[in-house]
Amino acid sequence: MTCQHIENILKNLKEKDYDAYLLNQFTNIAYISNYFPTSFAFCIIKDDPIIFTSKMDMEIAKNNSSIDIIEFESFSKLNEILKEENISKIAVEPSLPINLYEKFNNDFDLSIETFINNERMIKSKDEINKITKATKIAQNSFKELNILLNKSKTESELAYELGRIMRNNGAESESFDTIIATGSNSSLPHSTPENKSLGEPILIDWGAKYMGYCSDNTRTIVYTEKEHEIFDIVLESHNKAIKSIKPGVKCLDIDKIARDIISEYGYEKNFIHSTGHSLGLDIHEAPNFSIKDDTILEKNMVLTVEPGIYLEGNFGVRIEDTIHVQNKGKIIGDLEHIIN
Amino acid sequence: MTCQHIENILKNLKEKDYDAYLLNQFTNIAYISNYFPTSFAFCIIKDDPIIFTSKMDMEIAKNNSSIDIIEFESFSKLNEILKEENISKIAVEPSLPINLYEKFNNDFDLSIETFINNERMIKSKDEINKITKATKIAQNSFKELNILLNKSKTESELAYELGRIMRNNGAESESFDTIIATGSNSSLPHSTPENKSLGEPILIDWGAKYMGYCSDNTRTIVYTEKEHEIFDIVLESHNKAIKSIKPGVKCLDIDKIARDIISEYGYEKNFIHSTGHSLGLDIHEAPNFSIKDDTILEKNMVLTVEPGIYLEGNFGVRIEDTIHVQNKGKIIGDLEHIIN
Repeated sequence: MTCQHIENILKNLKEKDYDAYLLNQFTNIAYISNYFPTSFAFCIIKDDPIIFTSKMDMEIAKNNSSIDIIEFESFSKLNEILKEENISKIAVEPSLPINLYEKFNNDFDLSIETFINNERMIKSKDEINKITKATKIAQNSFKELNILLNKSKTESELAYELGRIMRNNGAESESFDTIIATGSNSSLPHSTPENKSLGEPILIDWGAKYMGYCSDNTRTIVYTEKEHEIFDIVLESHNKAIKSIKPGVKCLDIDKIARDIISEYGYEKNFIHSTGHSLGLDIHEAPNFSIKDDTILEKNMVLTVEPGIYLEGNFGVRIEDTIHVQNKGKIIGDLEHIIN
Repeated sequence: MTCQHIENILKNLKEKDYDAYLLNQFTNIAYISNYFPTSFAFCIIKDDPIIFTSKMDMEIAKNNSSIDIIEFESFSKLNEILKEENISKIAVEPSLPINLYEKFNNDFDLSIETFINNERMIKSKDEINKITKATKIAQNSFKELNILLNKSKTESELAYELGRIMRNNGAESESFDTIIATGSNSSLPHSTPENKSLGEPILIDWGAKYMGYCSDNTRTIVYTEKEHEIFDIVLESHNKAIKSIKPGVKCLDIDKIARDIISEYGYEKNFIHSTGHSLGLDIHEAPNFSIKDDTILEKNMVLTVEPGIYLEGNFGVRIEDTIHVQNKGKIIGDLEHIIN
């Protein structure tokens, strides 16, 4: 697969007359080469691709990379090597920091290109298997945690315990810091678990990483009549959005479908984020189910659907599943939505 | 303190005729405002500083920020607001991603400036107290883990268990992913803990985060005669470097002192990273004890000293302490170097 990615990118480069593509983001380099940098590295995609890496990463890079490795000495040396190969027009990633951009900008003609991000949008069978396995580990671990029998524990303790169970079940790590947000903390979409025993409702947003690939789910356990009312609206929005997913539909249309349901009930101002995001080696990838993203859905994209309603200072509800785009949208995993 | 930081930066800006300083990195924004973004944010330091943040962060930002918050709507709206205030020349952080740089580059005259990084080099009493507390939590937790009584456990299990103990002892989290690298894994400076029971030697590189501030230590437990020989060289390098730390000395001179000891014994090619780095809200900050960093040490800088010798495919030894620069270098914490 890795070879195919490089070939596709070389085709992109040729079409726009680039001599090379400079990658710096660790997950992009891992995607291309199977070597996951731990310090810093520059991957140059050209007919003869090469990675310049730090001295301290040489052993790990040589052990893992499918493409050739050179020890990085200095930017002037790197630029000299590229110039000797008559490289002048270079595509760079959108995320390249400006201080690194300036190390190349005097010697080369640089432009931002999203070839690598586009390449990563469509998942291979192997990638989908890894995301599915990560999701199953995360969901089984959630069941094993049995949060309702542990309400005397703190948010932090339960978040850490979930991490332990996920590792026991084969995860490398969490795919992001687990959110266990209860009581009024649940109105903060990115709440940090606190050393306080669980309030109500209980919002859990968690994922496992398996062979580098992420999973992402959210469940909210509700109690009062008002919480149930909000839950039902969020679930309706979530289900309607997922049912509308199919190749050919624009991402922003799925966002609109989810948002319209919430607006119908008068909560448009309380849905304070996008409807979802792609995932893979990173927990947030392109494209997004957002108001601005006009990417057209294709088979084998994998995105989350996670509408939420947040009542500031009071409580919040979010429900999130990860969807594999096939002829229609298929939910990955099988965890029920109503927990209590 | 926060006000003083803003005043110092405003002075830097005036001296170089800037109208504003645009900050994007989360720890820089947290340093200035006490609000730690969870999604994205832009902090504009000017006479009347302001933070533009995502809708989903508005509640958390309003609860924590010492400076005013506006909801980010779009880059064109943000730029319009800045232009209405006659802002034209803007300093930006070195780490600003190029795609964000381009959102501002058409409307403003941008230059990279390290004012914020320089400001963060000198730690306040409060910051040093937090780093000291983080270090004590991490070191006490290491003792509590009692790794020598748990040699049947795996690298991953012990790394996770250390995280649990650190949280029990008051840490928010690890300050970076704990490294427990044993046997031949110890020759990889950034090894990832594996699901295998402990080999020898045992290298542990770990830290706690306390109120946002990091600690960082490494200990290596050695067994064979050869391992002891390498250990003694690394410890000599570590001790000599620390003894040479005082205000007025250049960072690269401390690196040279540590490196020269290792070279004397013929292992210069096996010391494959810098001698140390500053820490604070981030685990890696400026300045560094590296071959290229000519920053002059000042009182109240806080840097690690972590020489290492790595015998590829065989084993590695690293010893790391965190140093508070006073009239001389003072080691933070009191964990012995020889564990077994």
